[in-house]
Amino acid sequence: MTISKLLVANRGEIAARVVRTARVKGIKTAVLRHSSEQEGPAHLIADEVVTIEGSTPVAAYLDIAQIVEAAQRIGADAVHPGYGFLSENAAFVAALEKAGITFVGPTSEVIDLMGDKIRARAFVEERGFPVAPSAIEDDDPATFVERSRTVGYPLLIKPSAGGGGKGMRVVREDGALEAEIDTARREGERYFGDGRLFVERYIERPRHIEVQVMGDGQGNVVHFWERECSIQRRFQKIIEETPSPALTAEQRDEICETAAGIARAVNYRGAGTVEFIYAQDGSFYFLEMNTRLQVEHPVTEMVTGFDLVAEQLRIAAGEGLSAAQADIAQNGHSIELRICAEDATQDFRPAIGDILLLDEPRGEGVRVDSGILDGGKVTTDFDPMLSKLIVHGRNRAEAIARGRRAAQDYVILGVTTNLAYLDTILDHPKFRSGDVSTGFLAEEADELNQDRDPATTDILAAATVLSDARLVKALENVPEIYRLMGNWRN
Amino acid sequence: MTISKLLVANRGEIAARVVRTARVKGIKTAVLRHSSEQEGPAHLIADEVVTIEGSTPVAAYLDIAQIVEAAQRIGADAVHPGYGFLSENAAFVAALEKAGITFVGPTSEVIDLMGDKIRARAFVEERGFPVAPSAIEDDDPATFVERSRTVGYPLLIKPSAGGGGKGMRVVREDGALEAEIDTARREGERYFGDGRLFVERYIERPRHIEVQVMGDGQGNVVHFWERECSIQRRFQKIIEETPSPALTAEQRDEICETAAGIARAVNYRGAGTVEFIYAQDGSFYFLEMNTRLQVEHPVTEMVTGFDLVAEQLRIAAGEGLSAAQADIAQNGHSIELRICAEDATQDFRPAIGDILLLDEPRGEGVRVDSGILDGGKVTTDFDPMLSKLIVHGRNRAEAIARGRRAAQDYVILGVTTNLAYLDTILDHPKFRSGDVSTGFLAEEADELNQDRDPATTDILAAATVLSDARLVKALENVPEIYRLMGNWRN
Repeated sequence: MTISKLLVANRGEIAARVVRTARVKGIKTAVLRHSSEQEGPAHLIADEVVTIEGSTPVAAYLDIAQIVEAAQRIGADAVHPGYGFLSENAAFVAALEKAGITFVGPTSEVIDLMGDKIRARAFVEERGFPVAPSAIEDDDPATFVERSRTVGYPLLIKPSAGGGGKGMRVVREDGALEAEIDTARREGERYFGDGRLFVERYIERPRHIEVQVMGDGQGNVVHFWERECSIQRRFQKIIEETPSPALTAEQRDEICETAAGIARAVNYRGAGTVEFIYAQDGSFYFLEMNTRLQVEHPVTEMVTGFDLVAEQLRIAAGEGLSAAQADIAQNGHSIELRICAEDATQDFRPAIGDILLLDEPRGEGVRVDSGILDGGKVTTDFDPMLSKLIVHGRNRAEAIARGRRAAQDYVILGVTTNLAYLDTILDHPKFRSGDVSTGFLAEEADELNQDRDPATTDILAAATVLSDARLVKALENVPEIYRLMGNWRN
Repeated sequence: MTISKLLVANRGEIAARVVRTARVKGIKTAVLRHSSEQEGPAHLIADEVVTIEGSTPVAAYLDIAQIVEAAQRIGADAVHPGYGFLSENAAFVAALEKAGITFVGPTSEVIDLMGDKIRARAFVEERGFPVAPSAIEDDDPATFVERSRTVGYPLLIKPSAGGGGKGMRVVREDGALEAEIDTARREGERYFGDGRLFVERYIERPRHIEVQVMGDGQGNVVHFWERECSIQRRFQKIIEETPSPALTAEQRDEICETAAGIARAVNYRGAGTVEFIYAQDGSFYFLEMNTRLQVEHPVTEMVTGFDLVAEQLRIAAGEGLSAAQADIAQNGHSIELRICAEDATQDFRPAIGDILLLDEPRGEGVRVDSGILDGGKVTTDFDPMLSKLIVHGRNRAEAIARGRRAAQDYVILGVTTNLAYLDTILDHPKFRSGDVSTGFLAEEADELNQDRDPATTDILAAATVLSDARLVKALENVPEIYRLMGNWRN
């Protein structure tokens, strides 16, 4: 089939991202807009804008019936879901299938399987791929201690009924196992009224490494190498990069081939990501599979040169993959910074405000995938991610230096963002040396905030304001200059 | 030595370009600004702005004494000349040397040699590199016919005293040579009162191919492959690309090795470009060498991944090249479009105006090196080039498609630009197939202008205006909507 008109069932930067590639491929495009939503970049470059209604803006973007009806009404022959919203919703895929509209993504069966984390884990384990060793007491209480022993050390004992870290105990040697199980059981009974336990391998200072895969649904699967996403705040990635500084060439091949193997096992169609926990000793374990394009896909595009959305659209149209595995190489290094409207000094509290001045960085090795426009309004209706700054360099050091330059040149006035925080992370010695884990931001919280000395940044802000005629112009609209500087600082 | 503070003795997009890389390398930066000149992107990102005076803005940028004095005053230990202005001025280099300031570029001797086109040609020919065969009657009138014969066919006979094409005759076979020489001599006497002649090989439908070279001044020279710049209007390049669609792998190696050999012959230091005339039969001839960074250097950066300004700064600091020839590969395809304030339908007459709305394209494979700001004023004080749009794709077709998408999304309202003209060129069947020569724009002038039907583009403009709230806002400032559309159309 040929896709002649594509509805992008999403918003913000990803809607604009998908529209760009569809247009490059000569496909007509339509995007959604909630009746109360401000205009974004996608609305300026799409051929058509469809207004949707809902009690809240998010509800409208989750309204399967309304979106399928809209696709039919405008004559779209395909729908791209972006990420989030309905992108991993099997019911949405089924509704589109029923309406005779192509879903740009995997089958509803695969979405269903991978959406159920326990089923997905069992599926992967049964086929011989690595999952973190574990033992569930309920499976067979009589053999629990014995099975726990085979999990390996260090291991973590958790109350089955637990949560919030209560009653959890790390065991580092076999001699302590039985005593700790007894203690944990008593604590479980005390905290939760339930002494049943669960044991899993304890990964110290784990890293998050994921692999971009792409399948044609005809049995052909390739990978586009890995991404490392260990820099997370509140379990959300904010800096991603590729290649991972943790991997040797052999480990890279092994983890990427494992991911491709998992995708092959489900005869995967479309773009997907296989996520792994990576231990400091080089072992890795399947975590989950995301059956959609990821926020961080641009770093993969920067180093491989492939347009992943173009590949998605090819596959959806039945044209298959444009490349064989041997054609997909990593060139240089890429880092993505997620620019969020939030206050990093206030536990990442979401920020709101009017964008008084917006100036995006430009030039060699810089890509900005933005969801905002100058003069726009930042609300809490949607996710706080405003934009993504993606940089590329010949090597990691050059990518970091370019990232810092671009982050410092990225002007967003009127709403607090995490730009300075991201810049501080890039300059942290441990980040620069690649010595990070998913706990990095929490472990280094004091230092990361200490670096952003308010007095210094106020002086910097004032100096910049004085030398920038556009800032002076913007300031004419702002009575409280200190409020503005306070916002900008963060 | 270490460069700690760099003065960029230039303006517009190239000043911002150089500042970005200097900042990435941790070097303090200063840029110039004529007292009557509007603020540009470089002024916003440089650490320091030095005001210069002159009877005209251009005169100030050519004022060697003033600029050297400014560099001394602010404590700059190096000067980057950009392109144009003083970039190939040996006296400027000598003045900086005298002041103890590093010039980011070659020695004044090499600039002198290559700046004299006749000396440069003789130098290159003597060392066995290919120059277009020619014969000058004055060198030895008695052997002129014989020497003309060795030039080869087709050849072009030109009156030595001539100009403007008068008295020029193309000879395609040996049997006609002597009769045509007699005719040309009579015509020369008639038109110029001087019958002396000059013969050179006539290159039909020539292409302009140039090679980026880089030397450390210590005998090491590498090339960064070729660029094709055949799309020229009035002898000025407006679209450049790499790789050249004309070359086979063997021809590419040969022309690039020739260029590196020429640079080696002068023990070249810094970035330079060796330009060749390339004939449709695959032969090529040295044209000239430019001893500076070129406008079109970004296409080379896009496909090789190298930052050429970073290499220049390394070499100037005595750190040498960062790579060996084997490390420099071409990945994918890149095209640059020069966005100029000019009216392509009026013989490229320069345009002026206030920039009412500026919105640059973004995203995968797109780089904008801009010299303008929203709200700025376009005057005839400087070159009409406002900005450069550089795109990259996995192959030439993808680069063209991305270039068209980005050109169409590039909004500059208030001043006539060549954006639509550039877009039309990208869509021309001969350009798409790579079948171009330096005469392409003149040969296809009718078709290139015909494609831009005023009625159609007015409708498109109106449609875009109505769907874009920012355009509506901009229009509030403009009483004559039709004037605006007329401007935008071109």
